[in-house]
Amino acid sequence: MTLDRNTISAAAERIAGHVRATPTLRMAPGLTLKLELLQASGSFKPRGAFNRMLSAPIPPAGVVAASGGNHGAAVAYAARALGVPAAIFVPEITGAAKRARIQAYGAQLLVGGAAYDEARLASEAFAAETGALLVHAYDQPEVLAGQGTLALELQAQAPELTHVLVAVGGGGLIGGVAAWYAGSGVQVVAVEPEGCPTLHHALAAGRPVPAPVGGVAADSLGAKQVGALMFPLVQAGVATSVLVSDEAIRAAQRWLWQECRLVAEPGGATALAALLSGAWVAPAGAEVGVVVCGGNCEPGSVA
Amino acid sequence: MTLDRNTISAAAERIAGHVRATPTLRMAPGLTLKLELLQASGSFKPRGAFNRMLSAPIPPAGVVAASGGNHGAAVAYAARALGVPAAIFVPEITGAAKRARIQAYGAQLLVGGAAYDEARLASEAFAAETGALLVHAYDQPEVLAGQGTLALELQAQAPELTHVLVAVGGGGLIGGVAAWYAGSGVQVVAVEPEGCPTLHHALAAGRPVPAPVGGVAADSLGAKQVGALMFPLVQAGVATSVLVSDEAIRAAQRWLWQECRLVAEPGGATALAALLSGAWVAPAGAEVGVVVCGGNCEPGSVA
Repeated sequence: MTLDRNTISAAAERIAGHVRATPTLRMAPGLTLKLELLQASGSFKPRGAFNRMLSAPIPPAGVVAASGGNHGAAVAYAARALGVPAAIFVPEITGAAKRARIQAYGAQLLVGGAAYDEARLASEAFAAETGALLVHAYDQPEVLAGQGTLALELQAQAPELTHVLVAVGGGGLIGGVAAWYAGSGVQVVAVEPEGCPTLHHALAAGRPVPAPVGGVAADSLGAKQVGALMFPLVQAGVATSVLVSDEAIRAAQRWLWQECRLVAEPGGATALAALLSGAWVAPAGAEVGVVVCGGNCEPGSVA
Repeated sequence: MTLDRNTISAAAERIAGHVRATPTLRMAPGLTLKLELLQASGSFKPRGAFNRMLSAPIPPAGVVAASGGNHGAAVAYAARALGVPAAIFVPEITGAAKRARIQAYGAQLLVGGAAYDEARLASEAFAAETGALLVHAYDQPEVLAGQGTLALELQAQAPELTHVLVAVGGGGLIGGVAAWYAGSGVQVVAVEPEGCPTLHHALAAGRPVPAPVGGVAADSLGAKQVGALMFPLVQAGVATSVLVSDEAIRAAQRWLWQECRLVAEPGGATALAALLSGAWVAPAGAEVGVVVCGGNCEPGSVA
């Protein structure tokens, strides 16, 4: 698969008008937050969903997706915007807020197994049976290109950045971000919860391998293994995967509320947790960008 | 008092590095939100507080302020940043979250009466007694000029705006905003809760007069009457004061959460409530900016 700046720029043109240009917030010299939690449907996921759904004809059966919640909400949001039916498979761990949002966008909600990977299998069976277009949560070229538009946007907003911290679940976002920044000199840093170390295991094994799924961010970062398409992109463009504890993630959520009045879900606060906890230390003179990538939680859960 | 663009530009230079340049979020063609709830201390108030505190020497007794909470938090935040002591008088209606924040910034918290106006009298007595510098919540030239920097920033971010909606309590923010936009062709629209109609009563009387203080936004917009300094600015530059119900304010808080993952306090959602409820109707072709001016509430209170 070729995922380069031209592909990502084309995706940005394709999805313009359907997604929001999310703002950045400069907190202090050296630290800029990318407020992707303010994206339509509450996470970065509509970037990839719209790019996939606008790149091919959508069959009468509509679209189908499996998701811990954010991708499902994005596909449901995009399907409503484009006027097509959507079926969304979620695992049992997906919380009430995310389920309600998927249904509020008018999609059919189906529960497919205990964790994401079982929901994924159910969604693939549904696609085979009905002819619906499968919109994968991370492992399709159009999805990676769509997520990469976040980096295109960020570099225009904050060209001074030397490092960009990104949380990893299945790796669609970091794959797209790494592809955009490849060769630019900007270092992309992957951050994962200790409970969902998919990239960490993959980098150690030299290929995507199954990893445990657990901890506070499992509903958004709990892919069982990283995608096949993202892996070479990340091997080429990402130096390391930093692991953070659930306590560090909760502390980052509290910090975002106390310092910025931002409500980030655990997965949305995971990249910041690496910086605040010291799991990743910025080199002297670094200009660090942190992607705050989702806010789909109960607002009272962050204080 | 002369409050013109030069004075506001000078204030912006004075406070740069102490306050955040808050981002805008373009929601759709015709609607842009100014996310001033992401300002340091959770509201626009540090703009005026820093401008006042950096415009004169601060005596050894430090600074004193009266506040429903947001101005007090801002003065406490600024005092900590500048290394001076602060005493903050709040009324009894000020909630636990705002009290805790003032104390967390290291200020002395004092309760001065049932509503803001009594706290104001107590703060003036404290200033006379101790020699502390009084930082008024709205009725000082440096405070108005500082709040006006929000409009300077907004116009640079969104030069296409034709209308800007601003909530009014004591009127420091709208006074500064009206002064910045005076003569520009941009129409500034004042929005007040039905429970705190200070500007509405003042415009009817032709001068600041006492008004009732009540409703869900009383802790941030519950000044008993608008300031003397802001009134001629608003008479010259603001066509009308739109009133909104408590229900409309609550609905705007819910909308900000559902559509944007933003937690605004009632006063912070008041300007938007005018647009969403139809209390104010945008003319055809308008480009409307809405200032979301504060987020100091319990995050779970908005859902």
